[in-house]
Amino acid sequence: MVKEPASQRMLIRVEYDGTGLVGWQRQENGLSVQQFLEQAAEKLTTRPTLVQGAGRTDAGVHALGQAAHLDVPAHLDSRAVLGGLNSWLEDRRIAVLSAQPVAADFHARFDALARHYLYRLGLRAVPGGLLRDRVWQLGRPLQLAAMQEAAACLEGRHDFTSFRAAACQAGSPVRTLDRLAVTASQDEIHITVSARSFLHHQVRNITGSLVQVGLGKWPPQKMAAVLAARDRRQAGQTAPPQGLYLTAVDYPEGAVSSAAG
Amino acid sequence: MVKEPASQRMLIRVEYDGTGLVGWQRQENGLSVQQFLEQAAEKLTTRPTLVQGAGRTDAGVHALGQAAHLDVPAHLDSRAVLGGLNSWLEDRRIAVLSAQPVAADFHARFDALARHYLYRLGLRAVPGGLLRDRVWQLGRPLQLAAMQEAAACLEGRHDFTSFRAAACQAGSPVRTLDRLAVTASQDEIHITVSARSFLHHQVRNITGSLVQVGLGKWPPQKMAAVLAARDRRQAGQTAPPQGLYLTAVDYPEGAVSSAAG
Repeated sequence: MVKEPASQRMLIRVEYDGTGLVGWQRQENGLSVQQFLEQAAEKLTTRPTLVQGAGRTDAGVHALGQAAHLDVPAHLDSRAVLGGLNSWLEDRRIAVLSAQPVAADFHARFDALARHYLYRLGLRAVPGGLLRDRVWQLGRPLQLAAMQEAAACLEGRHDFTSFRAAACQAGSPVRTLDRLAVTASQDEIHITVSARSFLHHQVRNITGSLVQVGLGKWPPQKMAAVLAARDRRQAGQTAPPQGLYLTAVDYPEGAVSSAAG
Repeated sequence: MVKEPASQRMLIRVEYDGTGLVGWQRQENGLSVQQFLEQAAEKLTTRPTLVQGAGRTDAGVHALGQAAHLDVPAHLDSRAVLGGLNSWLEDRRIAVLSAQPVAADFHARFDALARHYLYRLGLRAVPGGLLRDRVWQLGRPLQLAAMQEAAACLEGRHDFTSFRAAACQAGSPVRTLDRLAVTASQDEIHITVSARSFLHHQVRNITGSLVQVGLGKWPPQKMAAVLAARDRRQAGQTAPPQGLYLTAVDYPEGAVSSAAG
């Protein structure tokens, strides 16, 4: 006889406008995405509920497709979780886009195969307006081809010490960038980057360095030297958070479609 | 002998995120775009300065290309006005995109040949997130072809009494819609509309009625009957402000390029 499980693990996808929030993770000094989601989950499940994200995002960083898991009473299906979380959410900056059942041992952070980020650089001369908290408003043109040339040397497996925040707690500075593309889009330049995992501030530090190249302050070839130096002081500034979007998190196909619905 | 004029009239183009503002026009009950621009203009010119808009926008309505004129001391050129206004502006929701000299009798409101608006309807099931104050989040699909059919009967010159706010102060309810298009754009439907001038709430009331058609609550043919009724109670609700964008204001070519730079 199979006993019905007391709870069901759910994978949710979450969009948020990070403006004015302290980031994904619960903190004492302000409002976080995790806290709002956990408050909504507690209302829905009537018990304290951990919402475990695929990764942290910094204050002011946005997400189009953050992923997280949580355990809910087994009688709640995907639709009830999606509708319930959204209706209990007390902050309209955050939207739960989907919910799907996963195995009881699924883990949003440890099972992630890839994380995808977008960084938006604003080129138009005048700052402010509708995109003020949505792009890094550089206010001048950038040399696209030079940025593309510089980006090429960062793809693949490297020691990214030069692009790692001092506070980074990862055991190793070695990461593999599966993709790092620089493309033009109207008045913007977009940096899209994918990896299984990233170091703290890695995307923003790479972006700050690519901007040095785009502004003509560095020749494209300097990027390889900065990478090889393994010295954070050699790289460019940390790009500000408001241009960064966590666009998606990938999981093994089996992990997110095998459990009962 | 020609005496140098004491002042130069300038036409400016302005983008703003209307979220949290009381609209274009100065009001006692909150912060307006006009007030911020006039404060910046007074800092720049060191004298009280009227900034006359092409038209009002309601609280929460956005602009990609609002137009306005102001008079500045003659020694200030376009570049000084553009840079000066932006650097004195105390609210980053507002951005002055351009400034150009115009004749001393140019008038941003009365010389406008056409005003262009965009209304964005959000279709995805989940509200909130990055577009929460940027679209009307209907949260369900709309019947595009039916909306297009209904829109067709509103193009051209008509008595728009049915789509006019009770508070509208225009002398006549007759207006000419040069264009009214309904198009699909990813998870949104866009209504684009152009006319020399509009009645108060005309675009939002037309939008609210087109949504009735899109939801299948009205047959497309009902729109012609609503128009003919000349009765505000026959039309749909006033669509909320956050989906509306004033995209551009047109002037005669001669008026905006003839004056000295």
